[in-house]
Amino acid sequence: MQQPVVSYSMPAEEIESVSLPVGWKSYISPEGRKYYVNTSTKETTWERPSTSTTSPKASGSHQHSVNGRQLHGASGHVLEHPDVYLRKTSLSNQSPGSTSPARRQNKEKEIKETKITINCVTFPVSMSAPEQQLLKPSEWSYCDYFWADKRDPQGATVSGFEVLLQKQLKGKQMQKEMAEFIRERIKIEEEYAKNLSKLSMFPMAAQEEGTLGEAWAQLKKSLADEAEVHLKFSSKLQSEVEKPLLTFRGDNFKKDMKKYDHHIADLRKQLVSRYAAVEKARKALADRQKDLEVKTQQLEIKLSNKTEEDIKKARRKSTQAGDDLMRCVDLYNQGQSKWFEEMVTTSLELERLEVERVETIQQLLRQYTTLRHETDMFNQSTMEPVDQLLQSVDPAKDRELWVKEHKTGDLRPVDMDI
Amino acid sequence: MQQPVVSYSMPAEEIESVSLPVGWKSYISPEGRKYYVNTSTKETTWERPSTSTTSPKASGSHQHSVNGRQLHGASGHVLEHPDVYLRKTSLSNQSPGSTSPARRQNKEKEIKETKITINCVTFPVSMSAPEQQLLKPSEWSYCDYFWADKRDPQGATVSGFEVLLQKQLKGKQMQKEMAEFIRERIKIEEEYAKNLSKLSMFPMAAQEEGTLGEAWAQLKKSLADEAEVHLKFSSKLQSEVEKPLLTFRGDNFKKDMKKYDHHIADLRKQLVSRYAAVEKARKALADRQKDLEVKTQQLEIKLSNKTEEDIKKARRKSTQAGDDLMRCVDLYNQGQSKWFEEMVTTSLELERLEVERVETIQQLLRQYTTLRHETDMFNQSTMEPVDQLLQSVDPAKDRELWVKEHKTGDLRPVDMDI
Repeated sequence: MQQPVVSYSMPAEEIESVSLPVGWKSYISPEGRKYYVNTSTKETTWERPSTSTTSPKASGSHQHSVNGRQLHGASGHVLEHPDVYLRKTSLSNQSPGSTSPARRQNKEKEIKETKITINCVTFPVSMSAPEQQLLKPSEWSYCDYFWADKRDPQGATVSGFEVLLQKQLKGKQMQKEMAEFIRERIKIEEEYAKNLSKLSMFPMAAQEEGTLGEAWAQLKKSLADEAEVHLKFSSKLQSEVEKPLLTFRGDNFKKDMKKYDHHIADLRKQLVSRYAAVEKARKALADRQKDLEVKTQQLEIKLSNKTEEDIKKARRKSTQAGDDLMRCVDLYNQGQSKWFEEMVTTSLELERLEVERVETIQQLLRQYTTLRHETDMFNQSTMEPVDQLLQSVDPAKDRELWVKEHKTGDLRPVDMDI
Repeated sequence: MQQPVVSYSMPAEEIESVSLPVGWKSYISPEGRKYYVNTSTKETTWERPSTSTTSPKASGSHQHSVNGRQLHGASGHVLEHPDVYLRKTSLSNQSPGSTSPARRQNKEKEIKETKITINCVTFPVSMSAPEQQLLKPSEWSYCDYFWADKRDPQGATVSGFEVLLQKQLKGKQMQKEMAEFIRERIKIEEEYAKNLSKLSMFPMAAQEEGTLGEAWAQLKKSLADEAEVHLKFSSKLQSEVEKPLLTFRGDNFKKDMKKYDHHIADLRKQLVSRYAAVEKARKALADRQKDLEVKTQQLEIKLSNKTEEDIKKARRKSTQAGDDLMRCVDLYNQGQSKWFEEMVTTSLELERLEVERVETIQQLLRQYTTLRHETDMFNQSTMEPVDQLLQSVDPAKDRELWVKEHKTGDLRPVDMDI
């Protein structure tokens, strides 16, 4: 009989390091409750040990149930080492087949009232569960809020994990659209630069001379300088904003998402088949138990020629069916635990990716505004030489230059003599 | 016989006010030389009077010639009151007909060697003229440099005044072309604004939520703000630069230029016809003089039966022809003086208009650079709200918002019971 080893310990970084008395370690149960284990005596307790704590509490079942299930050793003690959940499959004590029907009924009732299995995943019914504490309180962490499936607007079932995955894929779409937006801005800037550059070369008033002509020529040239500034802007937009937006999640991103998707989906599928096995085993046990009961009754009223041998056989089969059921439930629980672990790990990874996405985009958009600031400043500076030359405009100087070039004669007319 | 009144005094503002001894006033001759007149004694002198100056210099002809011509009164004195050039048309003294041929010849020689008439305008021959001083020294004034005609590249004759006029008309063309340039800039700005405005409304990444979504939305909006800035720029360019450039010389300007053109041209035309009259009178005089000479010779050798009566008649005709010539020369000189005055006045007006044009354009182009500076500053400010929102981007907050909206369930799965 296999002894499943199931570990519910959280990833190491999730485990708080707290200062405990010597020999004690702390762990988090799947429900999120912290419990303490004495590594030498193997005592387990919910209560934080002080140096005076020696013996485990021996109170009602719930306090010592981890994951809602009582862990009994052969002696009836709570199983001491929580890291390793060894199932002591002692048939006599643990087999559901050996309990009285009444007790069984109670247990089944207990099962019905405290847990519910939806889409092959087993949850506590909220009222009866010991209050689960969030794995990462106050953080609104993905690993705390996406356990259940939901229905989409079309009525199809969507797992919580898929919601998380879709968000990541949408995030990639967002960055692509942002890059498109930047691309459009780049095109606008290039068009603007082209127009300014062309205009700067138009010959309007090219014949203006002197200091005014110089100022005007510089004003026209400043448009070419402005064009240069905008071209530089568009070029940097391309290399420092657009390109990173397009590429900071590489092609591998989608592959990784697919991988996660399939991995988690496979674990769910496995859970489905294991749950089916449990239901099948449960039914088979019920059949065997019914058979045993009938045969026992028949023996009592000497209804048939069934011998004690037959009853023993029926009892054996019943016991086996019980064992099968236990195994199936174990396998199921293992499968669920595995899925649980992968969900926590992977959803935290998606959470990390999302933080990274937001921070990266924030950084790139800041770069955008930085480039815009730069551009406006460079643009301002194109006016400086124009301002200077306008300052120097001098009508008298211009007249001197022009007259020197175009004068026709400075001898003034005189009276004609007779 | 008419007594032409010709005044060569400069416009009042051209006359230097200098501190002179009591009773003296200063004037500028047409050649630009300053001379001084004692308003009580009517003494005239080239030399600046100190309190000791009393009598006019009595030296060679040039020193007392104003406008290169000796002004002799009946007594032979230099004509005292220069403001009014009264020609004392005493026939006996002043008639060229009464001078000896030899003396006449000298005078003609003098005329040939000191003055030259080109296109009906009479100039001193540069070597012999008393050095003309500029009317407005160190100012490169229009009124000093455009007396002569010139030839254009096609070989046609162009007056100096026309050169000045063309400059003004060209100036109007320059301002029109500058306005066109600004119009083109306005169109470019409007195009840019339109493109930015359109892009700002594109739905790229509209689904981004939370603090990142807000920052992104503001970034997109900032393009609309930028568009607004550029529209305002183009609007102000239109009203504060383009429009004034087009309109600061009104339609009247061209009419005024035409008026000046015709006025000055008419005065030149009059000069042409008056010069023709002089030439005609000169020829007539020559004919009459020859006739007299012939008749006198004939009398002396008793060649014909001409009586003294005939000679007296011939002599009278000769004298008349001389008077005619003097009158024609006077009229010509008046015409030239009138043209001279109008040239000075009008060219100074054109000069003033040119200064005004340069200063106005300087002002409007400064307005252009001011608007550009403003625009860059307003543009910078469109980034402020974006920077602020980018500052506030918070992945944790965004996760909280998203998880609250999209979570599927926070109950964690538990082990199934048997």
